Amino acid sequence: MKEGLFVIEGKKGILELLDSRLKLHSLYTTEDIFEAPGERSFFISEAELKKISKLKTPQAALAVFYIPKQGKPEAKGLQVALDEIQDPGNLGTIIRMCDWFGIEQLICSRGTVDCYNPKVVQATMGSIARVQIHYVDLPEYLAEAKKKLPVYGAFLEGENVYSQPLSAEGIVVMGNEANGISTEVEKLVNQKLKIPQFGSSQRTESLNVATATAIFLSEFRRRTLTGK
Amino acid sequence: MKEGLFVIEGKKGILELLDSRLKLHSLYTTEDIFEAPGERSFFISEAELKKISKLKTPQAALAVFYIPKQGKPEAKGLQVALDEIQDPGNLGTIIRMCDWFGIEQLICSRGTVDCYNPKVVQATMGSIARVQIHYVDLPEYLAEAKKKLPVYGAFLEGENVYSQPLSAEGIVVMGNEANGISTEVEKLVNQKLKIPQFGSSQRTESLNVATATAIFLSEFRRRTLTGK
Repeated sequence: MKEGLFVIEGKKGILELLDSRLKLHSLYTTEDIFEAPGERSFFISEAELKKISKLKTPQAALAVFYIPKQGKPEAKGLQVALDEIQDPGNLGTIIRMCDWFGIEQLICSRGTVDCYNPKVVQATMGSIARVQIHYVDLPEYLAEAKKKLPVYGAFLEGENVYSQPLSAEGIVVMGNEANGISTEVEKLVNQKLKIPQFGSSQRTESLNVATATAIFLSEFRRRTLTGK
Repeated sequence: MKEGLFVIEGKKGILELLDSRLKLHSLYTTEDIFEAPGERSFFISEAELKKISKLKTPQAALAVFYIPKQGKPEAKGLQVALDEIQDPGNLGTIIRMCDWFGIEQLICSRGTVDCYNPKVVQATMGSIARVQIHYVDLPEYLAEAKKKLPVYGAFLEGENVYSQPLSAEGIVVMGNEANGISTEVEKLVNQKLKIPQFGSSQRTESLNVATATAIFLSEFRRRTLTGK
């Protein structure tokens, strides 16, 4: 990841980011709705906003923030690791649920879609400021991290997640939308998990990766909460 | 819903629909990859496909199917009811997970986005042929159905879904992306449920509605499977 800037649109998301660790570069707004530092905010017309917005329906304001410096990930807590996720909506949804479930570190393989892509940022609804996102050489990271944390992976032919023992801390690896977890990463997984399919048809090819991540995180956190 | 036609693009989805109860109207393909009835299939050039495709990267084929006649929903089994879901991606993802979790009937309020919208159809990955989708007057349906099934609803201030008793059959109501469940529908809910938030920040405003639906369905089905 190069150091640089990213864009977020809409009052709600901008307010969340203004109230976070992130640093504002500049703010363009058609309404007087922010208490942002004056020298960095600019009033613009709706026609001007329409020109710079990437949204079909521009939302009163657009802000540019500095991309925070990326620290080094630490092998602790419950983490999600993404192996080459390509869809910006999926990544944004996963960042948002990590925030909900108190996942502090999201580990992304270098080939995962950029989390500062505007579509990702919009889908996170402000959560991007609260989850630490690390782009790493995923096999290298896992090889080191697995000395401290168990590595779980989502596979269609894994063990039933509802009936397996799950530890409170660990790394949950989710694979690419079309190809799943790569062979190199698969070798580093301690336990393969699946979400069992229900009903008579048994024809659905797979769940969307964001849907599957939600179900795994829910199950890990439920165990911690209920102790069952 | 008017009777009519809908479009699906891509080999995988088309193959799933050809192998379903749905009836093909016409098929346009650049490759000889289908065993579809000859009089309904047409070879076209890639330039022609590009003209009729709504995808950025057209996927070798586009098919038109008849929208199946809508039967009457039956108050049985585990069901999902959607109150004014607007985002096509969310509806498509929910249809796909209903198929995975063996939810046979999906009930949509009349103001919910059309499930034959091309973006919805693409996101279902073929599952649209296997889930019965009913557009109804939602308060009217729930008032009648709750004589037979308990009605659960997703609310930020509901009871913790992990610790509440859940029945194997019932209706799980999910609300609009911005406004949640409407007041009229809320009155018909027997039990309000929430997904508890974890971690220290407690700042995430909410989960995406498709994410939340996945977690509720996972928890209902897990109970049935494990009996705990």
